[in-house]
Amino acid sequence: MENKDISQAVISRLPRYLRFLGELKDQGIERISSQDLSRLMKVTASQIRQDLNNFGGFGQQGYGYNVDYLYDEIGKILGLDKRHNLIIIGAGNLGQALANYVDFGRRGFHTKGLFDSDPHMQGVLIRNMPVRPMSELEDFIRDNAIDIAVLTIPKESAHSVALRLAETGIKGIWNFAHVDLDMPEGIVVENVHLSDSLMKLSYSIDNVDK
Amino acid sequence: MENKDISQAVISRLPRYLRFLGELKDQGIERISSQDLSRLMKVTASQIRQDLNNFGGFGQQGYGYNVDYLYDEIGKILGLDKRHNLIIIGAGNLGQALANYVDFGRRGFHTKGLFDSDPHMQGVLIRNMPVRPMSELEDFIRDNAIDIAVLTIPKESAHSVALRLAETGIKGIWNFAHVDLDMPEGIVVENVHLSDSLMKLSYSIDNVDK
Repeated sequence: MENKDISQAVISRLPRYLRFLGELKDQGIERISSQDLSRLMKVTASQIRQDLNNFGGFGQQGYGYNVDYLYDEIGKILGLDKRHNLIIIGAGNLGQALANYVDFGRRGFHTKGLFDSDPHMQGVLIRNMPVRPMSELEDFIRDNAIDIAVLTIPKESAHSVALRLAETGIKGIWNFAHVDLDMPEGIVVENVHLSDSLMKLSYSIDNVDK
Repeated sequence: MENKDISQAVISRLPRYLRFLGELKDQGIERISSQDLSRLMKVTASQIRQDLNNFGGFGQQGYGYNVDYLYDEIGKILGLDKRHNLIIIGAGNLGQALANYVDFGRRGFHTKGLFDSDPHMQGVLIRNMPVRPMSELEDFIRDNAIDIAVLTIPKESAHSVALRLAETGIKGIWNFAHVDLDMPEGIVVENVHLSDSLMKLSYSIDNVDK
């Protein structure tokens, strides 16, 4: 698969394609024209064709897209055919919410452990996994081939935890802490800044009629 | 404030400016040059100047930006000087996590109530608020001048709840359900699709060296 030069904008749209294609699959729909997919997703048919042409184009003139095939191919592009082992650092409400998302497991993301610095949380079972102390972090990552760490901790502790993670073999950080992390090259950070999103909503509410 | 024609890309960057300026404020820093802000935020100084020029430009040649002033002005643009009343629909782990974010209150977002369709959750106290049944939704929104509904419910029930919300005076939906909502004009939806974000991380991990 030759996908070196695909823009981040296209990549950002792929999970949404996958979601809609998954719903079509669930409904037993085997193929769809770019026009129908366009109406469903509320993006132009030409945008859809352009986006999917980045991957060689899966559609055939007059036939449309094979839903199963396109779903699988986009999944492969996103790396969902590979297994990822996760740990969650920060076993508060948000960490527990993420640990309980069964959908992540179906996508190949397997939560192997939870960590928390709070002594009162140690050993508490969340989805049958005991919360572990931070002292076990490095050994656990090595012994369980963990490649993704999910940070659901306050911003004050995020930098020091990130520094520790940088010394392990971790490949990616899914960061919910309200701070930008400075990681060495080769470690990818994907941020979910919830209050940034809430502020965008606030702006849109004020400016909806303009 | 004339801000009709500001691109969504600029608006999307404003919360990050606000976050960094807030940290500078906390450190007691009163002014900063666009070069220093550029180094700190890892974006070009020309990008910063362009972005902030959309609002008339708060900087002065040779002086830099007044941190307090810029922080306040960006906050006003984002509508953070106004009060927003929120309800959270879905009192599971994620709903509880959001209810407990104290930072939202400091930004003018006040959670007034939580709702859940699960009879076992009724009356459970979360941050001193009892979980309410869905039958009280419309009255509560009217009586408490609620303008934002946060949806932390499964995708299966999201559409029907959204339909009910569309009939109330709600202005915005912060949607965590894994589905795109179809709302009437005038109601703004801001999506947080967590698994989309996890898929982007997965892609980036696979393609980090390319």
